Amino acid sequence: MNKITPRTLKGFRDFLPKEARKRQFVIDKLRSVFESYGFEPLETPALEYAEILEGKYGEEGEKLMYKFEDKGGRKVALRYDQTVPLARVIAQYSNSIPLPFKRYQISNVWRGENPQRGRFREFLQCDIDIAGISSSRSDAEIIQVAMESLERLGFKNFKILVNDRSLFEKIPKDALLSIDKLGKIGEKKVMAELSQKGIDVKILDKIKLNKPGEKLQKIISLIKDKRVIFEPTLARGLDYYTGLIIEVEVEGFDAGSVGGGGRYDNLIGLFSNQTIPAVGFSFGFDRLIEAIDELNLFPAEVTTTKVLVTLFSKELEKESIQTASMLREKGINTEVYLDEAKMDKQLKYANQKGIPYVVIIGPDEAKSASATLKNMKTGEQNTLPLDQLSTSIT
Amino acid sequence: MNKITPRTLKGFRDFLPKEARKRQFVIDKLRSVFESYGFEPLETPALEYAEILEGKYGEEGEKLMYKFEDKGGRKVALRYDQTVPLARVIAQYSNSIPLPFKRYQISNVWRGENPQRGRFREFLQCDIDIAGISSSRSDAEIIQVAMESLERLGFKNFKILVNDRSLFEKIPKDALLSIDKLGKIGEKKVMAELSQKGIDVKILDKIKLNKPGEKLQKIISLIKDKRVIFEPTLARGLDYYTGLIIEVEVEGFDAGSVGGGGRYDNLIGLFSNQTIPAVGFSFGFDRLIEAIDELNLFPAEVTTTKVLVTLFSKELEKESIQTASMLREKGINTEVYLDEAKMDKQLKYANQKGIPYVVIIGPDEAKSASATLKNMKTGEQNTLPLDQLSTSIT
Repeated sequence: MNKITPRTLKGFRDFLPKEARKRQFVIDKLRSVFESYGFEPLETPALEYAEILEGKYGEEGEKLMYKFEDKGGRKVALRYDQTVPLARVIAQYSNSIPLPFKRYQISNVWRGENPQRGRFREFLQCDIDIAGISSSRSDAEIIQVAMESLERLGFKNFKILVNDRSLFEKIPKDALLSIDKLGKIGEKKVMAELSQKGIDVKILDKIKLNKPGEKLQKIISLIKDKRVIFEPTLARGLDYYTGLIIEVEVEGFDAGSVGGGGRYDNLIGLFSNQTIPAVGFSFGFDRLIEAIDELNLFPAEVTTTKVLVTLFSKELEKESIQTASMLREKGINTEVYLDEAKMDKQLKYANQKGIPYVVIIGPDEAKSASATLKNMKTGEQNTLPLDQLSTSIT
Repeated sequence: MNKITPRTLKGFRDFLPKEARKRQFVIDKLRSVFESYGFEPLETPALEYAEILEGKYGEEGEKLMYKFEDKGGRKVALRYDQTVPLARVIAQYSNSIPLPFKRYQISNVWRGENPQRGRFREFLQCDIDIAGISSSRSDAEIIQVAMESLERLGFKNFKILVNDRSLFEKIPKDALLSIDKLGKIGEKKVMAELSQKGIDVKILDKIKLNKPGEKLQKIISLIKDKRVIFEPTLARGLDYYTGLIIEVEVEGFDAGSVGGGGRYDNLIGLFSNQTIPAVGFSFGFDRLIEAIDELNLFPAEVTTTKVLVTLFSKELEKESIQTASMLREKGINTEVYLDEAKMDKQLKYANQKGIPYVVIIGPDEAKSASATLKNMKTGEQNTLPLDQLSTSIT
């Protein structure tokens, strides 16, 4: 039989344990900050009726969306972001969801992007949103949560760029799309794009003179933090924003914004007879991981396994298995090496996996109800009575 | 503009916070048991090249798989289980994955099933697998972890049915498919199916007389637990099993098995020139949740938000926001009501969401640096100095 070449699709990734552990670490941190502010989890399907998603993300969105026909002939699409599904949910369960609705959602979205550095076809988004409140307090809280999340991840120097979409009311959409690229491609190229589109390039200078309106001033004054900065040229790509728009820049990391969001007071109304205001923020998870990596903010050890109990011989398997069991009962994550193999090979395995402690129970240890504990970092090793083992593991 | 009807596809589900919290609770428990045995997280893409998945799941699998052509003309398929992607991963990264490889994966899979009670088109699987070890110790550990997971979720009475696929070597595959349905449709219907297929129905009685072979006996003796029961008619549907097969039945819950698994020593070899033995187990998450619900094993409160700080008036917003901030710093998940609304409405909101405590800061409290704390369950309420607030919340 022919072998099937093991491979992944372009723009799709496997996360092996080392990477997956880092991701889990960041997710856990975000979840805990989100929940500390009263945001609750929501899950929506990966597949939606295509019509739910179509027409919400602008021209580019239509091109990048994964769409197909299922076996029942339904036109379906893979989740493109988490905001439109949220809007659908709020409209669909209006009788059972008490407003205000504060939810977080952490799940994958799919976009047929041209893969390049930091851009993938499957990527995780971490969203918080508040629906049902138009008060600036909700805009301020969204920014506050984003800032606290960054701090809890170890970031110290970052900027929260803010602007108000309503300041762009008279600017043609075509111009906006070009201005949105300012951070990525620079002023010269944006001016060139504008000219090409037949738009007066003075529009850019005009925008730069914009002042924050009353609403944005209120939001900024509620937060009172120098890292929140009014940026009149900030535009944000998505169609559905109506008020506040936000983008986060981390100093020392120039691969792009690690997150963004804004107010979208008309989106839920597309699915409902009610108009329900909403504001939200989304972390771009890959960028966040990249930034944490680059700034060396991951703790030295993000291992989950603390101890490897080796298997000395078939005859002593019971001793190893029972010792591991005892350590687990003390709350220590413990793996048993399940195969008969040379001790060298077992130690090498612990090393490769970054497991900090190894326990060896040979015939001498077995006779005296003890175990040898080896610290894999320092190389130090001691033989201890079994009942002192767990307290010697730090 | 016409409203878009908010709806979900048949067989797909939204999980609103109450349900999503329960799911997260179970996932966290499973993760912690898995990690305590040294299993590490792995993530694989939702989309794979179709050829990776095709031909691994039997006839039914081919029918139920979500397949389509992407915009680049590639034939792709949505993840159907987590075992085949694992096999691909082990073959693909053979240079960087040290064996034995113990991983867990908790993610959605998609099957175009005919939706019915407890059967969906998108559902979560929670898998543990050990690759690279043929020793019965790994079979035993897989069963051990499944048992400990069930215990940690509160289940007391359950059975781990075990059998060995190699005992079926001489049984035609057609017969196996019918015998696999024994638990679901009963002996009479299975016999009828066998006759219809032209198979001698005596085959069933013959199978019932099977004895566990040496390997299965070794596994059973390693675990030494009365809940592990040899069941000679257990067949399991999937094609790839080669040795041990397992199914878990919870007493008092008869909607079906909450999980299953087995040994598959030839699957990784389909992608690799190496033969790598493997054994694994998968929890059917929906069934698990259903069983926990039915047996009332969820803790009374799985809320994430502990306190709602109400907003007395616009003038007192600062006091409410600062008090909430203070509670969060003490590790208490605290929501602020962000809108101006009647106190009744705010209390009703806390009630609807099952938030156990409400804090009220009116003009009197503000003057005396105190707050009124209301226990929503008992109705009891007290006015306390702010610095005693957090310790009064239990």
